[in-house]
Amino acid sequence: MEDRGISQAVIGRLPRYFRYLGELKDTGVERISSQELSELMKVTASQIRQDLNNFGGFGQQGYGYNVEYLYREIGKILGLDQKHHFIIIGAGNLGRALGNYTNFEKRGFIFSGMFDQNPKLIGMKVRNISVQPMENMERFIRENDIDIAVLAIPKNGAEEVAQKLVRNGIKAIWNFAHVDLNVPKDIQVENVHLSDSLMKLSYNISRYQQENG
Amino acid sequence: MEDRGISQAVIGRLPRYFRYLGELKDTGVERISSQELSELMKVTASQIRQDLNNFGGFGQQGYGYNVEYLYREIGKILGLDQKHHFIIIGAGNLGRALGNYTNFEKRGFIFSGMFDQNPKLIGMKVRNISVQPMENMERFIRENDIDIAVLAIPKNGAEEVAQKLVRNGIKAIWNFAHVDLNVPKDIQVENVHLSDSLMKLSYNISRYQQENG
Repeated sequence: MEDRGISQAVIGRLPRYFRYLGELKDTGVERISSQELSELMKVTASQIRQDLNNFGGFGQQGYGYNVEYLYREIGKILGLDQKHHFIIIGAGNLGRALGNYTNFEKRGFIFSGMFDQNPKLIGMKVRNISVQPMENMERFIRENDIDIAVLAIPKNGAEEVAQKLVRNGIKAIWNFAHVDLNVPKDIQVENVHLSDSLMKLSYNISRYQQENG
Repeated sequence: MEDRGISQAVIGRLPRYFRYLGELKDTGVERISSQELSELMKVTASQIRQDLNNFGGFGQQGYGYNVEYLYREIGKILGLDQKHHFIIIGAGNLGRALGNYTNFEKRGFIFSGMFDQNPKLIGMKVRNISVQPMENMERFIRENDIDIAVLAIPKNGAEEVAQKLVRNGIKAIWNFAHVDLNVPKDIQVENVHLSDSLMKLSYNISRYQQENG
């Protein structure tokens, strides 16, 4: 399925459609109207129709959407029909939390290795994966067809690690370090800057208080 | 300082300005031109000038921006000059990771309590905070002037906990549970849906491969 011509705004909303359709599917719902989906997702029915029309005509007048089909097609667009092997750099609490999400596995993301520079953490197990020393990382990436690296380390070491990842052929970095990485354009980066998110929350509290006394 | 009339797009970019200005300040930089800031942040200088013009005239022709002043003013707009007390619900790896971020403290977010339903985790310490049973949560919120709750629990229990938070006067929820919460409009919610973020990364990998063979 081609995605050319689909706007970034629509793409940005796809994971949420995918999540809701997955839940409907899991509870045995076979079809749903845009009106019902609208009430569930709290977006307008016309927004839903416009968004899903981008993927051809799986909505039929008077019938609604076929939940399983739509779920699967959106999954394909998101690339979830492919398998990706990922490693986690940083075996602290955040790295371990991410390693323990079995949900990622269901979506084709295979947790394959974990690395830390702290000797005390080497050999610790997160699910079936043993934490290895950082010195093993580069060879491990090359030998195990790793395409995604999760950076769950403080910002100080992040740039240096990122350069090693790039040199060894990683395709994408899921970056939790509080720093914007300098990597070539062909490396996909998704930042999760938790401090930025907390500041947005803080801003919204302040604004609400100002507007409502 | 008033923020009325400042667009949501600008507001969304403020945490990043704040982060860069804070780093400049910490390394002793006193002033910076929009051109230099542009190279550092990889956004256009005209975008920076437009964004920062919203806050009045602290850029002077030929002088640039006063780093400390701008940092402080953006901090005020973000509400970081106020103190907020927060609790964390869920003492698993993610909850502990969030409890251990001392950075939040520096920005006025005071980690005040932690709760879990797992008896094995009760009494465990995260920094100076002991994990308490869920039954203590509601009273604790009321007695300790808690305004933010961090939800670091699986989606199944999240809605029920959210309702308890709302009933006891919480102002804002930082939601890491993979579910959209049903709360009144006067409760500020900031979602961090990690699966959605990983799917965006997956989409970008697929698209890059399609476009570049």
